[in-house]
Amino acid sequence: MATKDQNEAEIRWIIERWIDALRAKDLDRLMASYETDVVAFDAAAPLRYIGVDAYRKSWGDWFDTLDGPIDFELRDLAIAADDRVAFAHGLCHTTAQRKSGPRGDVWMRWTAGWKKLGGSWLLVHEHVSAPFDQRSRAVLHATP
Amino acid sequence: MATKDQNEAEIRWIIERWIDALRAKDLDRLMASYETDVVAFDAAAPLRYIGVDAYRKSWGDWFDTLDGPIDFELRDLAIAADDRVAFAHGLCHTTAQRKSGPRGDVWMRWTAGWKKLGGSWLLVHEHVSAPFDQRSRAVLHATP
Repeated sequence: MATKDQNEAEIRWIIERWIDALRAKDLDRLMASYETDVVAFDAAAPLRYIGVDAYRKSWGDWFDTLDGPIDFELRDLAIAADDRVAFAHGLCHTTAQRKSGPRGDVWMRWTAGWKKLGGSWLLVHEHVSAPFDQRSRAVLHATP
Repeated sequence: MATKDQNEAEIRWIIERWIDALRAKDLDRLMASYETDVVAFDAAAPLRYIGVDAYRKSWGDWFDTLDGPIDFELRDLAIAADDRVAFAHGLCHTTAQRKSGPRGDVWMRWTAGWKKLGGSWLLVHEHVSAPFDQRSRAVLHATP
């Protein structure tokens, strides 16, 4: 059995590689993090994506709206990792140049869950969101 | 070491107790599920709650707007549980009578993470959200 610290270090490394791929908009490298049957709750509609192909299309469609790399930072990252199951959460601050419109600058909440399958950690669940305010509008500019 | 099935069964039981408390708007029983330093990403602003006291206030404020019990169903529940770390996700359908205004009826996405601490599973992280649509409005009436 690995120690708690070893498992957490593995997940931290996995997250860093995921962030590198995201910043570079490298869809192949990014999607290699996910398990085939990933269930993803993304910030924008629909309610959920089931399966890596549908989720890949969502990421790709977003990347296509942007010029250049994505400036992405994960703040207050917390990781809980056992030998076969792990999850992590944090706040992500994303700024990126839209092809049409001003530079985007949003804070979101991010939660991810992994299983160790065949010796590798794979992202089986991701939940990204912005809170809405009491007038039912998404709050994209809240800061921690 | 417990088996994977035993751990999942424990988490399933924990979730059922949590749902019972939620439906009954029993704040004491509900909050007993959470770890003191829980980090919660709730559907409505702010961006996050840190600590069970702040999160309790958010639950209580919502309960206070409602008449009678909450009709709460969790659909497509998926659980990943190891000996010390577990997470779960699903879609929750909530209907409840508001004290002012029509009966609420919303679909949300729900993710929760637990650690086994001192022999008990405690909710250390929860993420509840509605997706927004491309016009930046929260989507509260999406169905799976």
